[in-house]
Amino acid sequence: MQVGILGAGQLGQMLALAGYPLGQRFVFLDTGGSPSADIGSILVDPDNQQLESFLGQVDRVTYEFEHLPVDLVREIEKHKPVFPCSRALEICQNRGLEKALFTRLGIPTPEYRLVQSADELEKATRELGQEGQRPVVAKSVTEGYDGKGQAVLRSPEDAAAAWKAIGHPQLIVEAFVDFVREVSMIAVRGQKGEVAFYPMAENHHVEGILRYSLAPLPDLDAAIQQQAENYIQALLQELNYVGVLTLELFQKADGTLVANEMAPRVHNSGHWTQNGAVTSQFENHLRAVAGLPLGSTRALHPTCMLNLIAKTPDLNLVLADENAHLHLYGKEERAGRKLGHINLVGEDALSLVEAVKTLAQALPEAPEPYFSFVSNSECL
Amino acid sequence: MQVGILGAGQLGQMLALAGYPLGQRFVFLDTGGSPSADIGSILVDPDNQQLESFLGQVDRVTYEFEHLPVDLVREIEKHKPVFPCSRALEICQNRGLEKALFTRLGIPTPEYRLVQSADELEKATRELGQEGQRPVVAKSVTEGYDGKGQAVLRSPEDAAAAWKAIGHPQLIVEAFVDFVREVSMIAVRGQKGEVAFYPMAENHHVEGILRYSLAPLPDLDAAIQQQAENYIQALLQELNYVGVLTLELFQKADGTLVANEMAPRVHNSGHWTQNGAVTSQFENHLRAVAGLPLGSTRALHPTCMLNLIAKTPDLNLVLADENAHLHLYGKEERAGRKLGHINLVGEDALSLVEAVKTLAQALPEAPEPYFSFVSNSECL
Repeated sequence: MQVGILGAGQLGQMLALAGYPLGQRFVFLDTGGSPSADIGSILVDPDNQQLESFLGQVDRVTYEFEHLPVDLVREIEKHKPVFPCSRALEICQNRGLEKALFTRLGIPTPEYRLVQSADELEKATRELGQEGQRPVVAKSVTEGYDGKGQAVLRSPEDAAAAWKAIGHPQLIVEAFVDFVREVSMIAVRGQKGEVAFYPMAENHHVEGILRYSLAPLPDLDAAIQQQAENYIQALLQELNYVGVLTLELFQKADGTLVANEMAPRVHNSGHWTQNGAVTSQFENHLRAVAGLPLGSTRALHPTCMLNLIAKTPDLNLVLADENAHLHLYGKEERAGRKLGHINLVGEDALSLVEAVKTLAQALPEAPEPYFSFVSNSECL
Repeated sequence: MQVGILGAGQLGQMLALAGYPLGQRFVFLDTGGSPSADIGSILVDPDNQQLESFLGQVDRVTYEFEHLPVDLVREIEKHKPVFPCSRALEICQNRGLEKALFTRLGIPTPEYRLVQSADELEKATRELGQEGQRPVVAKSVTEGYDGKGQAVLRSPEDAAAAWKAIGHPQLIVEAFVDFVREVSMIAVRGQKGEVAFYPMAENHHVEGILRYSLAPLPDLDAAIQQQAENYIQALLQELNYVGVLTLELFQKADGTLVANEMAPRVHNSGHWTQNGAVTSQFENHLRAVAGLPLGSTRALHPTCMLNLIAKTPDLNLVLADENAHLHLYGKEERAGRKLGHINLVGEDALSLVEAVKTLAQALPEAPEPYFSFVSNSECL
């Protein structure tokens, strides 16, 4: 089976590495012009000249990147099966549509306003921030990722500067959520509607970029895992979704969850599954796309993903740790760039966190890892 | 790092899949003219025209196939580091040199004769077979693999026909070994001389082709594992070997081992390590070739490799078993051809064997699996 992938970055590369053993081969269509997947056949197509060639080479199509023209995906859907469908893509790339869907499906989400000017931004900041009592977050409605196109406003006076800095005609303004941690739920839905859920991960972001994800969580109430499964199940069903879907959530002190955003694809917070689950998110996505049975999402052992940003570490040092599994993407070093990740496995979550701290100290520019469950460790 | 691989079959493909996450990229030199690796850059070079191009693209060189002209490898060694070295290759591709080395290093091996005519074959069969009391095995000294170029002679009268059937100017004739099972020891040696050993696997061949490998073995005495480690360690050291080496052995009823042959590469009987060991044989070979620290060879759980020969099974059926990990090579169906394998994992070796039997019944043309330890299961 020839699988077409829209986008050609590291997620596409890891999809291909997982798909080869299933007998799949890959053709990438890269509309941005700087592919890094470096596997399979890559059509670099910034001027939209190679769509016909792409369609002629593939049996079905998926994507590794949601910032794609929806019209392009709709056009592809006329010729080949596309999973997930263009409707999922359209909603995931527009924070306004996404929040409206969360609300309609009864999935808790922060209170929000859509604004189209600096004045409207100021008004929304005043209302949602309780007159400067609490910060709000403003984000471009479309195109933002990895913390780009976002600003935190501590008071209504920040509105003019934030409007200018983001530079987007429509923003979404979200009320502050008093959360204890960021978590993500990753699920996969097959073509017959069957669904499998991974155990949730705790995610540690710094300056909007994911640095650490750890799963499974030792202090996660089964009822909370179930609640997240219900939320993502509602989304999967509503969208008649096929493939891996990621739902990022905030968890509050009382344990309840508030949905932040979703991504219609394999996700950085699911990379731990490559070495920590029976079947990786990449393989499960491709099984779903190919109409094959889904694989088990069971965790094998606690696993922490450490992102390698900007600089490649000393491989001798990393690989000397028998619990470390290296995943480099083959990209040149550059400030803020995701160059790879390490999946560190452990016997139990607490000793794993200690090992993550030790390893992080030896990595260039790695922030101090923090996981909220450690502070509750007496209860574990 | 650009790794050059001589040979471009499924072993090369699986090496590349394991090497991408280490940041490695691959250039294959295929001197046979029918590559199936289908990854990286492949130079098809039956007429020896592309060596210069190959050398210009690679930082170091390894091989996935030992039936290569030794002169070619010696030439490559003048320009780039080659691991394992050409001397290992030379010995492994000549059963006479191999047996002499085993003997010199004190590694038990069946009594043997080298013969160069049908008459000499008859004489050797008479001597080693105790005048027709016991069969002997005749093999071409070079070029044989997967049971090709071999014949079992039940009496000296079979000599003329066997000589003709094998059609090779020099044969090795080996005395019959009364063994209870075939096992293999796979080890990896790094550039600083450090060595890691995988737990031994039991191998089940049918008509010379490996069908099943299971590891670790529940009834294997630690002293026997240690003995096999000593044997392969002697070979690794003698050859100043870098990379994965495989030693196939017979185990006799008294538990002792007799060396059959070795292969200077990753091996079909080590495919179980992809899903059954902390670090696969493929990754460990590449770590050694790259001069990186070796990964742990510890088994995670009992794992059985089932080869998929000639026909591709129903993937829906295979993947419905959550313990089954599929590895297809992307090759067309053909009689006797290795198209892929399944790694089936289990909680314990005995229940794994039952699961292997069930799965094998559903596979096209799979022989009944047999593992010797099952008959001793009361003792486990």
